This record gives sequence, structure tokens and C-alpha cells, in this order.
Amino acid sequence: MKKLNIGLIGWGTVGTGMIQIMQKNSQLLEKRLGAHLVLKKVADLDLLRKRDISLLPEMLTKKADEVIDDPDIDILVELIGGIEPAKQYILKAIRKGKHVVTANKALLAMHGDEIFKEAESYGVDLGFEASVGGGIPVIRVIKEGLSSNSMISIYGILNGTTNYILTKMLNENKDFNEVLAEAQKLGYAEADPSLDIEGIDAAHKLAILVAISFGKKIDFSKIAIEGIKDITLLDCMFAKEFGYCIKLLGIAKTDGRGVIEVRVHPTLIPLSHSLASVDNVFNAIYLTGDATGPIMVYGKGAGMMPTGSAVVSDIIEIGRNIISGAKKRLLPLGIAKKWVEEAKLLPFDEIQTPYYIRFSAVDRPGVLSKISGILGNEDISIASVIQKGRAVEGMVPIVMLTHEAKEKNIKKAIEKINKLDITGGTKATIIRIENNLS
Amino acid sequence: MKKLNIGLIGWGTVGTGMIQIMQKNSQLLEKRLGAHLVLKKVADLDLLRKRDISLLPEMLTKKADEVIDDPDIDILVELIGGIEPAKQYILKAIRKGKHVVTANKALLAMHGDEIFKEAESYGVDLGFEASVGGGIPVIRVIKEGLSSNSMISIYGILNGTTNYILTKMLNENKDFNEVLAEAQKLGYAEADPSLDIEGIDAAHKLAILVAISFGKKIDFSKIAIEGIKDITLLDCMFAKEFGYCIKLLGIAKTDGRGVIEVRVHPTLIPLSHSLASVDNVFNAIYLTGDATGPIMVYGKGAGMMPTGSAVVSDIIEIGRNIISGAKKRLLPLGIAKKWVEEAKLLPFDEIQTPYYIRFSAVDRPGVLSKISGILGNEDISIASVIQKGRAVEGMVPIVMLTHEAKEKNIKKAIEKINKLDITGGTKATIIRIENNLS
Repeated sequence: MKKLNIGLIGWGTVGTGMIQIMQKNSQLLEKRLGAHLVLKKVADLDLLRKRDISLLPEMLTKKADEVIDDPDIDILVELIGGIEPAKQYILKAIRKGKHVVTANKALLAMHGDEIFKEAESYGVDLGFEASVGGGIPVIRVIKEGLSSNSMISIYGILNGTTNYILTKMLNENKDFNEVLAEAQKLGYAEADPSLDIEGIDAAHKLAILVAISFGKKIDFSKIAIEGIKDITLLDCMFAKEFGYCIKLLGIAKTDGRGVIEVRVHPTLIPLSHSLASVDNVFNAIYLTGDATGPIMVYGKGAGMMPTGSAVVSDIIEIGRNIISGAKKRLLPLGIAKKWVEEAKLLPFDEIQTPYYIRFSAVDRPGVLSKISGILGNEDISIASVIQKGRAVEGMVPIVMLTHEAKEKNIKKAIEKINKLDITGGTKATIIRIENNLS
Repeated sequence: MKKLNIGLIGWGTVGTGMIQIMQKNSQLLEKRLGAHLVLKKVADLDLLRKRDISLLPEMLTKKADEVIDDPDIDILVELIGGIEPAKQYILKAIRKGKHVVTANKALLAMHGDEIFKEAESYGVDLGFEASVGGGIPVIRVIKEGLSSNSMISIYGILNGTTNYILTKMLNENKDFNEVLAEAQKLGYAEADPSLDIEGIDAAHKLAILVAISFGKKIDFSKIAIEGIKDITLLDCMFAKEFGYCIKLLGIAKTDGRGVIEVRVHPTLIPLSHSLASVDNVFNAIYLTGDATGPIMVYGKGAGMMPTGSAVVSDIIEIGRNIISGAKKRLLPLGIAKKWVEEAKLLPFDEIQTPYYIRFSAVDRPGVLSKISGILGNEDISIASVIQKGRAVEGMVPIVMLTHEAKEKNIKKAIEKINKLDITGGTKATIIRIENNLS
């Protein structure tokens, strides 16, 4: 039976999961692959840290180059994360003709194009199932399951930390900061949670999904990103009263004429939608293809074993290509670089969607007419209004849902309203609404 | 650019969907495959029927053999359904070295082993994504996405017709026969709906999922199958009162020591579970792997375009193997025939699960004690009881949920209870419960 040698750089949580799966399921994996998988070398800067498994000392090194330079290694697994030195290590491995598996979403979102091109040029496979949705095989679902479809839209709950926070706020009537502190204690949020709560992690993953769905190069800096830290418990409760919940969504839609709208922000979605019941740290991606209609995939978006599972499934996939003699069977982006163009992204100010707007205003006659007058001048029409509760220090919350309006008009109107005496220096909260997610 | 020739036998709804997708998305498919796809020949017994598309007369034939014998055809798509002559056509194509794509779940459930072996011997690919879950790429999710996992359990809503009926019964307070008639009018149920409502169609699909998940040969005749025709509106309403809904589920679980439990029957599942909100004609499969944890895939389980989408995705997959020079890259069952053993299935009488039992009994003292006495004698303990409503012709419904009990004990007890005077010749309804679906 043929033998495939695996090298790992970055032996952290996911790497430990990967090794555990390779050990526990070794017989099964051999049958499914028709080859032995051998973990040959592992590099990590910290070899002394306590881990759930131990490896033979002669397999270990502090130098990533020792793994990459080993001519026996067929597949390099990169799990160190971050841009550099991960990028240089991956490019070096590719140039040495090694296949690469990575979970590095930041790197692929920002420099995917360069890495994808290099992998194609050197005829090696690049597996990145673990970069999006942890144990959910969404990369395969798109590149293989929906290969017959022209993608229409993507809606994803792509970040477990923020989904946990929003779920707890709503279910336990707690405010953002309280839940964030709890999540940090439980290990669901990092000590510095900014990548998650500012929506950047979700945007990295969305960028990868958009790239493979549309076969385009994405300029990450052009994706509109808004996090969840301004979402209050009050907003969660008002949303529910209107029949919605708030989720941090990664959204991509095509207009059918080549322009793609790509954005990440807190979003009101109908409580009846399948994504509304995706709670806590679970992730889900709701995709609509022109032929298949809506498809949803759901599962654990992070963690040692789910993400380890995705890494090992990539190793098996690449192994199947090696064993069967397939060369360049499925390119990283699903299509050849000669056909890859830069995606035309809709500028954020041009998006059109209904909005949830919450104002604080003094509790006196004429306030509503002043606000709605300004909105009307910007061509924004109101679908429903809630004004309730007693004034707190003279102020009451007013919540409006608008009909579909232009982002730039909303921003103009809100700027004017924020300057009115009646809002007493408070700022309006705006949250975008998606009523029809397919 | 290389050209791949496709032949189709059986030009019905799904075949029309397949052709429409190949036409509409031809440029996209070419880029994703790196080759031209050419539909070369189409066979159908009825070439005069009106269809949404028309094809050149010289492509058409009434004789399947003309397609199968054509040496230019690389991939044969079989969409005639049924066991014979589909089986002979597929075997003949395989023996001529052609790759095959089929949506034929009955054939694969009953004769998959023979066809899989032949495909492996002749080194051809066999695509059957369209046989389960319509547009949901569940075959790929299992064979590729979860290739690193040992499968623990499968719970599937695998039949759209029955899911439509059960959804409508509950949501619109209608009885089975009324909803069935409506479904037939709308085209959601066949004139002869027995394959669907008796659970056989769901069992065919489950058998395929079990085979590829565990890499085993399944004796279809050993799968316990129960349909939905004895489910009444009353049961739907009682279930809801206990916090459940009723779904026709395909269930497979392993005990971790090589024995697999495989069954299809109406099942009470908690309203809070993700599968409970899969309504109408949608299908969903909830899988638990040892590494990835629970994964759910959801989408349209039938229809021209979703099923056509699955067929074309198989053509692309096989095309990618041909273009890249891959031989036997991924065998039909995911492992080689030398490793395929007959699955050890748990006899149905040995299953253990909680039960919902509804009796009709005369409305007088002592009835409950008599019934619960018989259950107690068979080692069945009661978790909760509802007895309510006024007697109708002297009878009242009594509903009990049991703790976990053995199927054979339940059957013994029910047989005794059915014979009691107090049930006045009525038969108890039993429905199995799944509380913990992972």
C-alpha cells in the first residue's frame, strides 16, 4: 500500500484535532484513501506546551523550514495562522511541488489570488475546507456540489463568537458587554475579541466563499464590514417585536449582470427563516443556486475536532488525487487563472435594503413628524413604527422599519436627524434588514 | 479544448432539467470543467410528448442501446428509473467502459452492490448524487466532506411528499386523506402514492446513505419500514402538546461495535430540533460524525431543476476525473470492494426507544390502571400521560409517552391491550420517539 507523508507547521488546537483524528480513524482513512497516511514532521515554536497527545521527539522541530524542505513530505498542513510567515511558508512549499492544506482564512481572503495562482502554476493542490465554517464542508458543497449552478446569493452565519453573543443577549435578556465577558470566561471569545466582534473574521470567510462561488478575485478592502458592538439588548427586543432576530450575516448577492454586493453586518432576519434558529456557536451558510434553489449547510463552525475534521478531509481529497494520478483536478478557485477576473463589487452606498432605525428623542408632540419629514425628503418611506415606554430622562426610544431605501440616503437622513435638538445629542442606530433571503 | 460526449436515456422531467442547466450555464460549466460538454444522443420511448425544450431530431432515438453502443459517448446518464431495464442498461454501459450517472434510488438500494462492484472492476465512475435529496449534495458531503469521520448517526427527512402531508396536517388542522388529495392535485403526490406514503422511497434513499456512510453492503429487505398512513390529525396535535412534531424519518445509528440500526418510520422529534422546522417539500439530512459533530444539509429534495442540478454536478465531477487523468479516484461506495462487508443490522424487535402510544378506551374508572399494569409487566415505564376530551360514543383518547423500552415488549403489551374489553376493538397507535438526535 502506498504511503503519503504529511508535515505540519503550527501545532495548536486544530493541529491536535487533526492528529487525533488521523490516529483514531487510521484504519478507516486507509480504506477510504487506499493509502497509508504518515505524519512525518511537526514544527512549532513552542514544543514544551502541554497538549492532549504526545509525539515522538524525533518528529518535532522548531523550524518550519525543516518540514517544508523535507523532500519526503507530500502534503504540508499550515496551521500557524496570520499573514506572515505563513504566506512565505506556503509559497515555498508550493514551489517545492508540495500540496498544501491550510485553515488560514485571513491569508486566503487577503492574498488568496497570489497563492491560488502559484498553486496552479506548480500543479499542486490547495485544500482550505477548514478556513470557513469549521466542520461544515461548505467549500466542497460550493465547488463540487453546486458546480452546475450559477450562484445567486450567499447568506452566512460565519462567526461562532458573535452568534453566541447575539443568541445569549436575546434568550437571556442580557446586554452586549455582559455576554461578551461571559463568552470570554467560557473560551468562546478571545481576550482581544476585535477580529470577531468587528466582523472581520466573518468577512474573511465571506471573501473566500464569494471567490469560489463566482470564480472571481476579491479586493478584500472593498468589502463593507460592520460589527456587532453597537447592538443593544433593546434592539434585540424591538427586533423580536417586529418578528425578527438579529444575526451577524455575511451577505453576497449578484444582480445577474456581473455586479456583486458583498457585505458583513448585523442584520434583521425573519424569525421564521432557517437561519434564525441557528443559535450559539453554530454556523450555517444559506446558498441559492440558479438550479438547485436554496441549500443550507449547518454545523460547528470552530473547535479542535470539527476544524481538524475539515483539515483531514482535505488531506484525503488531495491523497485521492495523488493515488489516482489526477493532476490539477480541481483548481483552488474552481476555474483556471486565465479566466479569473477582478470581481465588480457594488459600492456600499449603492445598496438598497429595508432598514431598522432606532432613535432616542424627547417625549413631546411633533417629534415623529420632524423625523419622518427628513426621511421623506431623502426618499425613504416608513413601513412601521413603534414608540413606547416611558421617557427616561425625558427621552423615549422610537423604532422605525423602512421600506427599501438607498444606503446613501439613509446615511444623509440620519446625519441630519442626529443633529436635531429633539435627539438631544444621541445617535440613531441603524440595522439593515433582509426579508427575502433567496 | 477537450470535448466530452453525454448520452441520456430517459428524457423526462429531470432529464429536461439537466439539459436546461447544460444549455443555460454552458459557459460557466466549461470554465469549471476545462472542457466542452456535448449532449450527443437522447433515448426515450416517447419522443412526441411536449417538453419545455426541443432537441435536434438526429439526436433522438427510441432505442436505449443506440445511446449505450455509441462509442463516442463518454458518460451515460440513466434517468428511466425502476429496476429493469435500467439495471441492464447501466451494466452494459459500464462493461463498455462508460462512466454512468443515475438518479435511480430503487435500483441502487436494491442492487447497488452488483453495480458498484462492476463499476470498480471496469474502472469507471458512477455518479448518484441525484438519487438522494434532489438538489442537496449529501452524497458528496458524506463521501468527501466527512471522509475523515467515523459516522455515528443519520437522521433524514428524505421524502418531500410525506413531509408536505405531515406539515399541512399540523399547520392547517387537516386529516391525512384530505391533505393527500390536495397534494395529488398540486402534483406533490403521485396518483398511486404508495411508494412515498408507505416509506419505501425514504428507505431506498436511507439505504444508499447508510451504504456510503459505513462502506457496507445493505440487505434492503432487512430495513424496518413504516409509512405515515396511520398518522391522524389527533396524533399531530397530541405530539405538539408534548413539545414534539411528527416527521417521517430515515434513521441509522451505530452502536460503535459494528451493529447498525436502520429504520424508517414516523417519529416524534422535539419541536426545538433543527429538523422540526424543515417543512413542506423540503428535505434535510442531519448527520453526526465522530469528529465534526452534527452537520445538517437542507434543500429541495425533488423537482426538475434541483435534481437536474445534481445530475449535472455528477457530470462535472466525472468530467474533472477524465480531464485530469484520474482513474478510480473515488469508488462508488468510497472504499474498495475487497473491504466491503455485509452490514450487521439490528433486528427491529431489538431496538430501544421511547414510544408515544395512543389508545381509545371507555371512559370509566380503572382503565388507566389496567393499561399501565400490562405495560409494567412488559418492563415499560410511563413518562407522561394525557387523558382528555369528552367521550365520543363512550370512548376517550389516552396518550402515553414511555421511557425507553424494547420494541418487542411494546408489541407484546399492545397486543394484549388491544384485546381488552375497555378498548372496544380499537387498535392502539404507536409512534417512536427520538429525543436526542445526535
